[in-house]
Amino acid sequence: MAESELQTATEHEEKLERLLTIAAEIFSEKGYHNASIRDLSKRAGTSLSGLYYYFASKEELLFMIQDRSLRKVLTALRSKLEGVASAEEKLRILVHNHVGFFSENMAAMRVITHEYDSLQGEYRTRMTELRHEYSDVCQEILREVRRFTSAGDVAPLNVATSALFGMMNWIYAWYTPGSNVPVERLAEHLYRLFTGGFIGPGRSPSGRRAG
Amino acid sequence: MAESELQTATEHEEKLERLLTIAAEIFSEKGYHNASIRDLSKRAGTSLSGLYYYFASKEELLFMIQDRSLRKVLTALRSKLEGVASAEEKLRILVHNHVGFFSENMAAMRVITHEYDSLQGEYRTRMTELRHEYSDVCQEILREVRRFTSAGDVAPLNVATSALFGMMNWIYAWYTPGSNVPVERLAEHLYRLFTGGFIGPGRSPSGRRAG
Repeated sequence: MAESELQTATEHEEKLERLLTIAAEIFSEKGYHNASIRDLSKRAGTSLSGLYYYFASKEELLFMIQDRSLRKVLTALRSKLEGVASAEEKLRILVHNHVGFFSENMAAMRVITHEYDSLQGEYRTRMTELRHEYSDVCQEILREVRRFTSAGDVAPLNVATSALFGMMNWIYAWYTPGSNVPVERLAEHLYRLFTGGFIGPGRSPSGRRAG
Repeated sequence: MAESELQTATEHEEKLERLLTIAAEIFSEKGYHNASIRDLSKRAGTSLSGLYYYFASKEELLFMIQDRSLRKVLTALRSKLEGVASAEEKLRILVHNHVGFFSENMAAMRVITHEYDSLQGEYRTRMTELRHEYSDVCQEILREVRRFTSAGDVAPLNVATSALFGMMNWIYAWYTPGSNVPVERLAEHLYRLFTGGFIGPGRSPSGRRAG
């Protein structure tokens, strides 16, 4: 691969990103176990030997799709959170960041969701750590939000965090970007549903008007 | 299969249920495409020819797992809703019914979620119809709940319905039945989170105290 040796770091990065996007689509459509590096070679128009310049194995490819997507989400989130003081604004940013990124990377989201179990050994360990890291950031924000909330029989933070991720991640199963609900609106709806609830602040969930 | 011919309808039904449970576990672990009828034969201790007495093909088996699970959920829900007048109580029943059933049938839930795309042709059409039927029941209840809610910039019903299913279905990815949050509590937490929100009725999502 004389050509590859001449690539700049930026060129390498751009090509790798493109390959990961195509690979995520293939894994999402056929499932990891049914997909082959040959499929990627065909769709990307890159020779098999050319592909192995970017990753060593199909499993490394699967890991890179998951690792890089989640890492981008987490890096973007941390950057957007800088200087933000309000706990609720932080939560709002988290929801918009997550839904915004994954609505543009639905295939990667499906791969993260469906093919986490396909990772093994070191890859699995590293991905588990990264997922925990992200989940911890979310849980910490929820803890802050709750500081000001009246006590009572509230959901434990891990239940609330998982409920929030469920609402956000499930979009891959039903949402079509570019549909009559734009992504920005979708994110805002989910943020408000999660924080304020479906019934809204004017009423208690029991069905009686509060106050 | 002389033995099978002597089965009563109840015996047939019980054996089929047992096979579907084991098949759901296998599909959930290995993925539909990697699993074989031979795997089922081994784990169930039933001969291959004996299995084909209960279903005609691997795809019919996949359809039966999905169809029967969802049908049970829907039938149980309709029965529990009979005579209930309060819209919020109906919603509460829906959440408890869904979470209660699927926490005991996590493998089936994973198969419904991950292997819906593996259904094709007639099976796919029938499953799509059943999913819409269930989703419509949920959306109708949400519409009723909202009748009494003050207007405003609220989430469209399809967004709210999908958010709710996201919260409920995601439990297969993180919840362990028999953990320190019992299923009944989990369902109640999710119901309250969805209806009343994380921040609760005392405050608006913007962070200011309401009223």
